[in-house]
Amino acid sequence: MNLDECRVTIVGLGLMGGSLAAALRGCVRSIVGTDSSPDPIERAPGLGVVDEATHDLAQALDGCDLAVLAVPVRASLQIIAKLGVDLPPPARLMDLASTKVDVVRAMQGLPSSIDPIGGHPLCGKETAGLESADRKLFEGARFALVPLERTSPELLSLVEDLVRAIGAQPLRIGAAEHDRAAALTSQLPYLLAAALVCRVGRAEGDLPALRDLLASGFHDTSRLAASDVTMMLDILITNRENAITELQALLQVMEEQLDDLVYEREARLRRRLEWVQTMKFSLQPEQKGQS
Amino acid sequence: MNLDECRVTIVGLGLMGGSLAAALRGCVRSIVGTDSSPDPIERAPGLGVVDEATHDLAQALDGCDLAVLAVPVRASLQIIAKLGVDLPPPARLMDLASTKVDVVRAMQGLPSSIDPIGGHPLCGKETAGLESADRKLFEGARFALVPLERTSPELLSLVEDLVRAIGAQPLRIGAAEHDRAAALTSQLPYLLAAALVCRVGRAEGDLPALRDLLASGFHDTSRLAASDVTMMLDILITNRENAITELQALLQVMEEQLDDLVYEREARLRRRLEWVQTMKFSLQPEQKGQS
Repeated sequence: MNLDECRVTIVGLGLMGGSLAAALRGCVRSIVGTDSSPDPIERAPGLGVVDEATHDLAQALDGCDLAVLAVPVRASLQIIAKLGVDLPPPARLMDLASTKVDVVRAMQGLPSSIDPIGGHPLCGKETAGLESADRKLFEGARFALVPLERTSPELLSLVEDLVRAIGAQPLRIGAAEHDRAAALTSQLPYLLAAALVCRVGRAEGDLPALRDLLASGFHDTSRLAASDVTMMLDILITNRENAITELQALLQVMEEQLDDLVYEREARLRRRLEWVQTMKFSLQPEQKGQS
Repeated sequence: MNLDECRVTIVGLGLMGGSLAAALRGCVRSIVGTDSSPDPIERAPGLGVVDEATHDLAQALDGCDLAVLAVPVRASLQIIAKLGVDLPPPARLMDLASTKVDVVRAMQGLPSSIDPIGGHPLCGKETAGLESADRKLFEGARFALVPLERTSPELLSLVEDLVRAIGAQPLRIGAAEHDRAAALTSQLPYLLAAALVCRVGRAEGDLPALRDLLASGFHDTSRLAASDVTMMLDILITNRENAITELQALLQVMEEQLDDLVYEREARLRRRLEWVQTMKFSLQPEQKGQS
């Protein structure tokens, strides 16, 4: 089946689902949207991002060629558990959740009539909801695809076409490697940003000029603290072991920094900070080539 | 003395000094630049940012109405110690260093012929050197001014005019409060960003797809790790006690996060993350009013 023949059902019309619907307009036969809250159902058709919108999940899934779950991880797990049992089985299924091991394990147990694959677009915003949806959200982003053993080559090819159609780059990866890397590249930055804001919030009472002294460096470092809490908690809980391992490893690095300051080991601290600077991890991909 | 009558000497033609020179063009009588390395001395006049450039610090300071130290903190301390002793005393002196307690203490010991004030523009870039200089660097930024008891009202008024002339907003603050706040708003974000990159760098060998999974959230959180190491080390060492206190307090917050994950205290973790989100610390000032 080609992408332009697909009737696509998007479950969850928040930032991700709404952006995907908007980006897929014109690339597929039709788009059905569904959401558990009434507000996006009412507004999505008027915004022109879906052909139909319904509060009824079973009705939305009935007869669709590809269902895309665009809800937080644990909501995805609950829906997957009901597909083919309490809910009609879609022909093909992809999720967009930010952790993959639990989702792929749940997909393994689906009825054989469903062809499933895991997905994770590596993009986002710190504002949630359909009102933040943007059809350009995926442009230039990487889009992780996690095929199962049971995933058909046709589905893999179809979703790679979908990924390219919305302007992203497909990246095949295993679930375990994805989740370990995601703890480093996504959950640690979020926890760091939240811890920084928490500390500054606790100190604010003593320092009336504190907010006046915040500049762009602080804003960038703390930006992720404004992320949607329900989504981030879902990610942390479903990737808990990796998050714990990486948070412990990061705490060790910071204890080393603290010791260098306490014992005035300036040369050691300099070597570490210079090594960090040479990594060029903080550069955007397009800058790497120039440096 | 009015700003437009001043002969201004800028000591250090890196990002800050070069940007200040460029921003002050046309606002002052003349600008002399000096630097300890030959490269910016050769290039600055051609770039049109200074009227004269000399490698000779004594010559650059001789007869200037206002000297501005735009070098790392400890280099500023060394120059201040020599003013009026080994170097000619400028009539008026301001520094731009990122920590203020040590600088202001050194300024207290200057000959009485010098009128001194501490300064700190709250802006920057992760690229150093004259080639990164930008006359718009200060636009919209706050500029901390730390008057000493001996600072004349005329000098305070003159540097407030200078700050406004380059598009920044003057903010009067005491040295001790400035440095405690700077540990929170500047040194902690830098140490966090460096620790994150250090951890990711150590893990990279095991995870070949790691760099492919880096997205904008990681880049923002880690951006400060690319800061100039000599400048940041100077700041950390001259604000060491505050940096240690705040790093310890931050480690405590992160230990609490870790415990919440280890003991699966999801409700507690959610309350903290939601509290953090309500602080709106991560928003830019112009966004605060909208939210």
